[in-house]
Amino acid sequence: MSLIYVLDILGTFAFAISGALVASDKKFDLFGVLIIAFVTAVGGGMLRDVLINAHPINWIGDLNYLFVIFAAVVFTFLFKSKIAHLSKTMFLFDTVGISVFTLLGLEKGLSYDLHPIIALIMGMISAVFGGVLRDVLTNKIPLIFQKEIYASACLAGGISYLVLSYVHMPENIIFIISAAIIIIIRVVAVKFELELPKIKDDLFTKS
Amino acid sequence: MSLIYVLDILGTFAFAISGALVASDKKFDLFGVLIIAFVTAVGGGMLRDVLINAHPINWIGDLNYLFVIFAAVVFTFLFKSKIAHLSKTMFLFDTVGISVFTLLGLEKGLSYDLHPIIALIMGMISAVFGGVLRDVLTNKIPLIFQKEIYASACLAGGISYLVLSYVHMPENIIFIISAAIIIIIRVVAVKFELELPKIKDDLFTKS
Amino acid sequence: MSLIYVLDILGTFAFAISGALVASDKKFDLFGVLIIAFVTAVGGGMLRDVLINAHPINWIGDLNYLFVIFAAVVFTFLFKSKIAHLSKTMFLFDTVGISVFTLLGLEKGLSYDLHPIIALIMGMISAVFGGVLRDVLTNKIPLIFQKEIYASACLAGGISYLVLSYVHMPENIIFIISAAIIIIIRVVAVKFELELPKIKDDLFTKS
Repeated sequence: MSLIYVLDILGTFAFAISGALVASDKKFDLFGVLIIAFVTAVGGGMLRDVLINAHPINWIGDLNYLFVIFAAVVFTFLFKSKIAHLSKTMFLFDTVGISVFTLLGLEKGLSYDLHPIIALIMGMISAVFGGVLRDVLTNKIPLIFQKEIYASACLAGGISYLVLSYVHMPENIIFIISAAIIIIIRVVAVKFELELPKIKDDLFTKS
Repeated sequence: MSLIYVLDILGTFAFAISGALVASDKKFDLFGVLIIAFVTAVGGGMLRDVLINAHPINWIGDLNYLFVIFAAVVFTFLFKSKIAHLSKTMFLFDTVGISVFTLLGLEKGLSYDLHPIIALIMGMISAVFGGVLRDVLTNKIPLIFQKEIYASACLAGGISYLVLSYVHMPENIIFIISAAIIIIIRVVAVKFELELPKIKDDLFTKS
Repeated sequence: MSLIYVLDILGTFAFAISGALVASDKKFDLFGVLIIAFVTAVGGGMLRDVLINAHPINWIGDLNYLFVIFAAVVFTFLFKSKIAHLSKTMFLFDTVGISVFTLLGLEKGLSYDLHPIIALIMGMISAVFGGVLRDVLTNKIPLIFQKEIYASACLAGGISYLVLSYVHMPENIIFIISAAIIIIIRVVAVKFELELPKIKDDLFTKS
């Protein structure tokens, strides 16, 4: 079992908990909580695999995802009030998860002979779409469209991965550097509350 | 034409009417009503088939689904005020539909050599996801995440099917027993207003 | 590069701008605007290709879609206040786009040996579903379910295409006539504010 697989599982666990927390805040029942935890954790990889025709798709091909999600829901059920005190740990898991999801998704895209730009988008879909699905199913406008900068962090890490691949560095080193870029950008962005620009009505007249 | 196929069609009819009623309450036009009836009736099987790569997917491989949905919309258009008096009949059709959708979805999963747990999930997706899509498209939080117990009924029936399969009972008997379990649980749950537990903030401190 | 391809690209550009405008009205950041422009422009063809198992799907098989969408977002970013004055031009592009999307989707369905009715639905999905996805992701009830008559225009144009194909007219002529039907119906419908009927509670008692 490789380190990257362990990080993938940790990220899945963190994503599932984030989904379970949102769902329980919305007063969903146990089944609803399970579904939201599930789509949050594996929704991104699932969409990627359907789009690139990679069957069996992620959670069908590896049952461990289901077990981890189930464990995350049980964990949330038992320790909900404690998790609030673990928010920094959760944020770390979540951020590691995002970085691993992005790079594994990108690698999967490349392994299917997709154009690097398409593979990059597949990496971002893997990292981002689970949260989008979670928000759509809980009837909210996806957070990531408005404030979260983490798509940009994924983009930067993905580009780093592609660029470093051209200079023939060892794959492990490329993975670690690119994951570090994603993690650092996200941590810095959250710490300093950085946001992406928005389209303003008067941008043209100002410039 | 087997009995199960007839029940599948009846269930599709009932699901389509339930979608058409929701859409007409939202003042959708005829096209909108058709779409919502359509996704409610075949959305679950459609998602299942896309996820397990079963092409042609349900309504592409069998035009009868479209004809039944169309008939259901015409029926709703003509008799909307009468359908209110048929709510018990509709509930019966709907419940039979859920049980058949669950077991047919489960069987399809097994026929694609999926792990029994995955096949079980495919059965539940077949039964549940049409209603989820209906609610997302009409901008509501899916009902099933909050109150409806029928996912649990589907789960119980699906597990029954898998367990009975191990003891080599005739397939028809297995199907009937499992469908009966789903129908009975749902009827009892609705009659006694049973709900699944929710995650409470203080669960841990209480226990 | 055929004329139809140029129209397809123009339509994609118009759809992407319509998505970008909606997203910027919702105060989405640059990433959110890109995503909404993307799903509005290629969401319909993407769903069609997933449903009929046509891989690589539209934007994976032809990178030009991505470039056009990116250009449309930059264009919207720079000229948002000017686009308001171009609403007639935009409406024209959009309407041409709808007609081309419908007929190309229909042709693709036929080329995959689908039943004409299924191919017709694929044409409509191609034209309509991008806007539905845009509305779902911005947490609105899809416009097309309530007021827009353009699905009916697509249906009429698609039926025209199928009927004319039976009389062995040259394909270009069929395409042009059917596209014209879609464009004319939509323009007339918008001009005269035509709407589809809705299901009324008392339809049966009245008739």
